[in-house]
Amino acid sequence: MVLDKEEERSRVLVIGGTGHIGKHIVAASVRRSHPTSVLIRDAAPADLAKAQLLKSFIDSGVALIKGDLFDHDSLVNAIKGADVVISAVGTCQLDEQTRIVMAIKEAGNVIKRFLPSEFGSDPERVHTVDPAATLYAGKISLRRLIEAEGIPHTYVCCNGFAETYLLSIGDVTALGAGPPSDKITVLGDGDAKGVFVVEEDIAAYTVRAIDDTRTLNKILYMRPPANIVSHTELIALWEKKAGRTFQIARIPEPDLLKLIKEAAYPLNMMLSHSLSVFVRGDQANFDIEPSFGVEATELYPDVKYTTVDEYLDRLL
Amino acid sequence: MVLDKEEERSRVLVIGGTGHIGKHIVAASVRRSHPTSVLIRDAAPADLAKAQLLKSFIDSGVALIKGDLFDHDSLVNAIKGADVVISAVGTCQLDEQTRIVMAIKEAGNVIKRFLPSEFGSDPERVHTVDPAATLYAGKISLRRLIEAEGIPHTYVCCNGFAETYLLSIGDVTALGAGPPSDKITVLGDGDAKGVFVVEEDIAAYTVRAIDDTRTLNKILYMRPPANIVSHTELIALWEKKAGRTFQIARIPEPDLLKLIKEAAYPLNMMLSHSLSVFVRGDQANFDIEPSFGVEATELYPDVKYTTVDEYLDRLL
Repeated sequence: MVLDKEEERSRVLVIGGTGHIGKHIVAASVRRSHPTSVLIRDAAPADLAKAQLLKSFIDSGVALIKGDLFDHDSLVNAIKGADVVISAVGTCQLDEQTRIVMAIKEAGNVIKRFLPSEFGSDPERVHTVDPAATLYAGKISLRRLIEAEGIPHTYVCCNGFAETYLLSIGDVTALGAGPPSDKITVLGDGDAKGVFVVEEDIAAYTVRAIDDTRTLNKILYMRPPANIVSHTELIALWEKKAGRTFQIARIPEPDLLKLIKEAAYPLNMMLSHSLSVFVRGDQANFDIEPSFGVEATELYPDVKYTTVDEYLDRLL
Repeated sequence: MVLDKEEERSRVLVIGGTGHIGKHIVAASVRRSHPTSVLIRDAAPADLAKAQLLKSFIDSGVALIKGDLFDHDSLVNAIKGADVVISAVGTCQLDEQTRIVMAIKEAGNVIKRFLPSEFGSDPERVHTVDPAATLYAGKISLRRLIEAEGIPHTYVCCNGFAETYLLSIGDVTALGAGPPSDKITVLGDGDAKGVFVVEEDIAAYTVRAIDDTRTLNKILYMRPPANIVSHTELIALWEKKAGRTFQIARIPEPDLLKLIKEAAYPLNMMLSHSLSVFVRGDQANFDIEPSFGVEATELYPDVKYTTVDEYLDRLL
């Protein structure tokens, strides 16, 4: 693939660039030769892992811009230097993204594309309960605000993070270090299809989309064909690789609803997401119509994504 | 215990009253005959569990006040009708509590006590990494703001929620329905002491403290003597009750730090809390000095708390 000259590449600002998916997006943006900047609250963080990450950013040519979601002027200034704004803020700051919208307006509403922090299921097509339901409602409100303000946008629905769901072979009640040892908990009947995408691939598709007219004002779904699997299929695949069978503990939907209601944070959040993913199959149970969406692997067939099968090999 | 007449009881406003600990605080406040009101965003929530909870509030005489942390006027009005403001907002809204402080000021700064949402370890005495470290830093900033504004306060450090830690016998990597079946994961050497308190008891102690001069401008710690246990002790207790032994999987501190760095939300949050609780023993590794703190079971010996031993019996 021939890259354009750097001066022609869109300048990318990532907000939330040190987070779980943000750091991959920063790396993918740099890899595509986009002049890339990251909004940073604290340039010398006490947290060692974060300090190392910032150093790696600087070493790879990323511009760190001191600023904060809550500091309007810093946000406006950072946005003025960007063509594309990608927000990858975490769960707690989703609703605060209205501040980014206001700053984009204040900066003259001249950016070419805004990608709000979605990076999950399509909030308008999930069917779940609180606390996740409230979180998705906030994402929908933000969509309406972006549209009302006439900001060019792409909503990235990457579906399930591999590191969230695949490390435990889909057992969201067993979030430990590595695959389950004996038992795997299955929510519902295990037959609903989920979609699981490796973080590096999510970032690669996202960066490809930022100056693609086909994704303008559309939802970019990620449904790699080899990665649309039910929990039952996922377990069967793992059992074959591991050369053994696992004990299956089932939590039927009524019990799951009761458990969500009783559970403390963060388990209640994880389980209410999982109700949508594993029981109701909300990531793959609808057709992507050209009127609202496009699919990443169809748009960018040259991106060689990691399949679920390949990802599981890493865990052996 | 003889209760005062209702007209003499402090009027309690709970913000975050439908949350995990908030709903217990509302119930405990009603039980102590405090005129109790709860700030409610949506009086007819789509979520069934939440709708049932609101109905139970109304049935028990709680006043629902329509309002929102982000609606300054609603907050000011609600606070004007209260003597005591208890915030039990969740993780995501911790930093937004500056809005409550501003509303308390606007309402004339005449409330008798403000309890910000802490309900965990003492943020000034934890030693952990991100993402939990940032969360605790926010709690500390809020403390300083409350003090600078001269608002009478009590900080409630209840330590670990029973429903978060005890349901899985302290295995924070196994957050499923009920105790582990075969294996229990231990972080660090398992010898650091944690403190685990049942939600109803946390609420009872909290409500006792609200008009107690001994807790004014102090930290109220909860360290029920029978509930200060190491993970190793907790597992031994459970093994005795269950009549069998469990396989122990150990994650040494360096591996845990690596895992926190790599893990996605919410596991990284859970693990960074657990580093403090289970490895560094931050809930019980310091003396409570009268200059800054008081201990709940010493102040209120008549509250019969549920011991860890009794709580585990419920899980058999």
